[in-house]
Amino acid sequence: MSGNSFGQLFKITTFGESHGNSLGVVIDGLPANLTFNLDDLKKELKRRAPGQHKVHTSRAEDDHPEVLSGIFENKTLGTPVTIIVRNTNQKSQDYEPLKSQYRPGHADQTTLMKYGIRDYRGGGRASGRETVARVIAGYFAGLVLPQLSAYAYISQVGPFKLANLPKDHKVDRGEINIPDASLTQQVISFLESCKEKGESAGGIVCLSIVGCPIGLGEPVFDKLKADLGKAMLSIPACAGFSVGKGFDFGHLLGSQVSGDPSAFGGIEGGISNGSEIFLQLAFKATSTIGEKALNGRHDPCVLPRVVAVVEAMAKIVIVDHFLRQAAYASFLPSNTSQ
Amino acid sequence: MSGNSFGQLFKITTFGESHGNSLGVVIDGLPANLTFNLDDLKKELKRRAPGQHKVHTSRAEDDHPEVLSGIFENKTLGTPVTIIVRNTNQKSQDYEPLKSQYRPGHADQTTLMKYGIRDYRGGGRASGRETVARVIAGYFAGLVLPQLSAYAYISQVGPFKLANLPKDHKVDRGEINIPDASLTQQVISFLESCKEKGESAGGIVCLSIVGCPIGLGEPVFDKLKADLGKAMLSIPACAGFSVGKGFDFGHLLGSQVSGDPSAFGGIEGGISNGSEIFLQLAFKATSTIGEKALNGRHDPCVLPRVVAVVEAMAKIVIVDHFLRQAAYASFLPSNTSQ
Amino acid sequence: MSGNSFGQLFKITTFGESHGNSLGVVIDGLPANLTFNLDDLKKELKRRAPGQHKVHTSRAEDDHPEVLSGIFENKTLGTPVTIIVRNTNQKSQDYEPLKSQYRPGHADQTTLMKYGIRDYRGGGRASGRETVARVIAGYFAGLVLPQLSAYAYISQVGPFKLANLPKDHKVDRGEINIPDASLTQQVISFLESCKEKGESAGGIVCLSIVGCPIGLGEPVFDKLKADLGKAMLSIPACAGFSVGKGFDFGHLLGSQVSGDPSAFGGIEGGISNGSEIFLQLAFKATSTIGEKALNGRHDPCVLPRVVAVVEAMAKIVIVDHFLRQAAYASFLPSNTSQ
Amino acid sequence: MSGNSFGQLFKITTFGESHGNSLGVVIDGLPANLTFNLDDLKKELKRRAPGQHKVHTSRAEDDHPEVLSGIFENKTLGTPVTIIVRNTNQKSQDYEPLKSQYRPGHADQTTLMKYGIRDYRGGGRASGRETVARVIAGYFAGLVLPQLSAYAYISQVGPFKLANLPKDHKVDRGEINIPDASLTQQVISFLESCKEKGESAGGIVCLSIVGCPIGLGEPVFDKLKADLGKAMLSIPACAGFSVGKGFDFGHLLGSQVSGDPSAFGGIEGGISNGSEIFLQLAFKATSTIGEKALNGRHDPCVLPRVVAVVEAMAKIVIVDHFLRQAAYASFLPSNTSQ
Repeated sequence: MSGNSFGQLFKITTFGESHGNSLGVVIDGLPANLTFNLDDLKKELKRRAPGQHKVHTSRAEDDHPEVLSGIFENKTLGTPVTIIVRNTNQKSQDYEPLKSQYRPGHADQTTLMKYGIRDYRGGGRASGRETVARVIAGYFAGLVLPQLSAYAYISQVGPFKLANLPKDHKVDRGEINIPDASLTQQVISFLESCKEKGESAGGIVCLSIVGCPIGLGEPVFDKLKADLGKAMLSIPACAGFSVGKGFDFGHLLGSQVSGDPSAFGGIEGGISNGSEIFLQLAFKATSTIGEKALNGRHDPCVLPRVVAVVEAMAKIVIVDHFLRQAAYASFLPSNTSQ
Repeated sequence: MSGNSFGQLFKITTFGESHGNSLGVVIDGLPANLTFNLDDLKKELKRRAPGQHKVHTSRAEDDHPEVLSGIFENKTLGTPVTIIVRNTNQKSQDYEPLKSQYRPGHADQTTLMKYGIRDYRGGGRASGRETVARVIAGYFAGLVLPQLSAYAYISQVGPFKLANLPKDHKVDRGEINIPDASLTQQVISFLESCKEKGESAGGIVCLSIVGCPIGLGEPVFDKLKADLGKAMLSIPACAGFSVGKGFDFGHLLGSQVSGDPSAFGGIEGGISNGSEIFLQLAFKATSTIGEKALNGRHDPCVLPRVVAVVEAMAKIVIVDHFLRQAAYASFLPSNTSQ
Repeated sequence: MSGNSFGQLFKITTFGESHGNSLGVVIDGLPANLTFNLDDLKKELKRRAPGQHKVHTSRAEDDHPEVLSGIFENKTLGTPVTIIVRNTNQKSQDYEPLKSQYRPGHADQTTLMKYGIRDYRGGGRASGRETVARVIAGYFAGLVLPQLSAYAYISQVGPFKLANLPKDHKVDRGEINIPDASLTQQVISFLESCKEKGESAGGIVCLSIVGCPIGLGEPVFDKLKADLGKAMLSIPACAGFSVGKGFDFGHLLGSQVSGDPSAFGGIEGGISNGSEIFLQLAFKATSTIGEKALNGRHDPCVLPRVVAVVEAMAKIVIVDHFLRQAAYASFLPSNTSQ
Repeated sequence: MSGNSFGQLFKITTFGESHGNSLGVVIDGLPANLTFNLDDLKKELKRRAPGQHKVHTSRAEDDHPEVLSGIFENKTLGTPVTIIVRNTNQKSQDYEPLKSQYRPGHADQTTLMKYGIRDYRGGGRASGRETVARVIAGYFAGLVLPQLSAYAYISQVGPFKLANLPKDHKVDRGEINIPDASLTQQVISFLESCKEKGESAGGIVCLSIVGCPIGLGEPVFDKLKADLGKAMLSIPACAGFSVGKGFDFGHLLGSQVSGDPSAFGGIEGGISNGSEIFLQLAFKATSTIGEKALNGRHDPCVLPRVVAVVEAMAKIVIVDHFLRQAAYASFLPSNTSQ
């Protein structure tokens, strides 16, 4: 049952049920002497927080991060950093009717089958609430490799889709992380109507990563694409992952891709080559629909908020691999382009 | 650099370069008292072996498995099982011209940047040859859970695509693992012409898994979809992974999927629910094209052979998770459907 | 720097500096459906707490455990259990004079050399205070295997030594965990005089374990003796570990031990054989001596309190190995004595 | 059952039963570009090999190392290095009478209880033969840190004991690794008489390590003393481990050790301080005694040969921790004495 840790050197362990006392993360393997800034962390958390936009759940979680260990005089000590956020606004009673209801596509029934017990007040560890700990860990990963930029945006929500993917790394993402003003308005209207009807929608997120050092990824099982894939697919509702041309590779011929360095999405042989890493992620529609969704406490679509989680997971993976490769730095010939 | 192990309890470690002495695998955590059958193992290896069909490389690898440890009187001992296959037909000289050539989309250059050295005779660990060790491990995983069936087939090669996915679990896969006789002939002709032209093609593989016990997968990071994703994305050339409706979830609404139990591909909340697990994998076209590919020693398309690798990796993941869950069997209430 | 996790299936991660906000532990891999009792946990913590006896430091730590996750309606959920204790009585100013002093045998200087930074208010992670998290984890390990009994006592403090080791598993340990009334009084007097003089003393702890299932321990590296050894040697000040006859094996001949089943201390070939497991542990004198020790805030001897930590670590190791072996239970022939 | 791997970054996996086809090791995480020398490796193996001295078993194992992977043109590739030695001189029939005999202190019975099956031809994984793989791995660890010197010697065999421990790091160890000529002759005579009588003897090994970088060891569980302890206690017959003054700490007072930097054996707070690391290890007498031992195929004492194994394990632990610390080198202030 021990599946709540991730990473080899930069190793995070998350904990907390959606309606328990707290959610949090222990980050072991964080370098010492990094400067911690509480406001920056809060800013990251706000990007994931509910209630920031009318398309989201009206449930306002007050995600106040509290430092339990690992930081002294605003510097990391090299010891485990532990941060928690309290669940202050639980209102468990709202969920009472769900006690014996199993939502399809959700973990209610599988949780009960696996553990023989379930925190019926909410999704427990299967809730999207769990991802707050990932965003915290992502903030600290960012301190390790400040030059690393992981930038995600939405390319599709239900029937609405970007006509062309943006070419720049950091495009304007607008109100709900869609890099197109007119599409943004269409999606907002669509999601508002979803909320009214108790409907929900899936979508696709694109992630562009620049500043990733060359040479990261450990063949044959810990290839960078494999660990990025695992990281993303561990996010609730994520049902698809691709790198570079992804599923378009299905119809592409060798002659169509070998001359296009961007086709491989910055990873060759499972190792980063210094180019932009490009990923696409499919998310399914949230499972709470119909009457149950009409109390306004559910998101009709996770994508606008999940963007922060996707970026966090990318940073966590890359920083872990950065440290794994750094262990061997002194053995590389000096002319190697690390 | 230690990325050659996979699994927590059923733990495999693979080794060997494409043109070194041997390739092999150590399987640690295999239960004792399982019956080993050399012929069955050879049969599995043959499915992955080159030279079995005219659409493949004409290079004939003689994959003779040799047992180094862990088996006594045809029974597993509970100690590490080690199996190797020798590289008998290396003909390294053929590859000499490639010594200073870096094939795009391949690991040649990233390997050199990462390690500062490279076995220029071939792809080293990045070669598809590495996957022979995975097929061996998959055979042994199959001994642990005989009721588990992982069945893969090709749904697309370049422009050729199945009109409808088959509904049955074990459909006839024909000569090259395509469950449609007429498409099979089209693809064979197409790949033969690719071989003549030094062209290569990507494609998509579907994997249907039945007989997976309920309750497998360890939230939040070792969800079953996450570990299956990592396993598949660690296969050379695999650039996309999806579960259930996968990227189609992008446009599907909650009301369109919540009534369809198969939409989630047998995994809810990261935990197996006992239904068929359905995955799709995208593979890119092999990187060796043009003149370099014209010596006949390269596959124009990896998909017909990769099917055996995909099935092996699925079995490895599921058996590892089966053992992880079995550790807790005595703590489950007796009425739980494990 | 990630060395704060222990265990494979029953996996604990501890955090917290001696003078930071909190100390705590995340226990991942705890079975679901176990009944939690806060009072029992507090009782365990009290055994380790300072200020329980006049031979200890007069510093009174109020170790109030707070449940952050993993428990609902007094039952474990199978999700990570997180428990913290706040550092309420820090009085950091007392330690200010130690800011630039490095105590020999302590981690002050090595911590600075390793991390380039140090929480100078106290021992940080090297402080004995860290062990409170181990005692918490040990309480939960005890829930998994209630029939397991790990019972430790002091056999030596400085020049005072038990004439004979007790034969029974659970002997009366008196006020300070010494199973001999007269020796207890001698040691109390001795330690009181140590306190007055700013002196400190080392000693030896014996640990008797009964109720350990047969067949635990994973050759060749995770032998039960090896993992017990690592667990004990990770305790601050522990400098020696032995199993069975231990260092007496140095002079014993084969004919002197082969007829005595107890010589091997319950472990043969690294695997538990069902007999009593018997360990001995050497602890060095605490490093704070002389003037620095005269403020009354330091223990002259860690042994009376460390007994609870030793028992906790034993339970943690054995429960982890119990789960590792349980994963294979269904593959054992039914006549095997598991 | 997966306990055959050791290390986090420098990660070894060993395999092979004493009477199976081969024994060997996969070393994953070895830096690239190291120069391999087969003769040097053979020299190391010879130090552990039986039949080198009349006090040993007369069984001559021909330990010819064969490179299966990871080395190309005498350089490591950064890929897993696999080396095997064949079991050429098995003579299994000699062991037939032992088929249903369980030797006390040996793993025969516990192996059967744990796995439900046993390779009755010999000790299987519990045999000292297993340690050949550790010596191979130790040779490669030595390539990573050439300045590291781990030097072991015997301080006691049965009733024979060094009067004083040598002060120099590399003393003359004579024929059987005892740094005293007269004691050497006494022990040789003693062990010859043991051989004649079917008797066996235990003893104590001292290990001096110099050249260990400062700052190695990862609190709180992966302290250097803890990982060295685990490594040594995983060696067959090792029943005791201590660092610095070890069990003598039991009677020493703080004032007696705090002024003696060598008391702590080079490790403070679980972290190496740059001084000599000093360990002592207790080994029990081999379990095969009496009639069964009279065929001349058993060692009356493992210590003369185990010295090479002890050194290998020390190097393996330290190199692993060296790489773990090296991952953080760029984050240390430049004035830190790493």
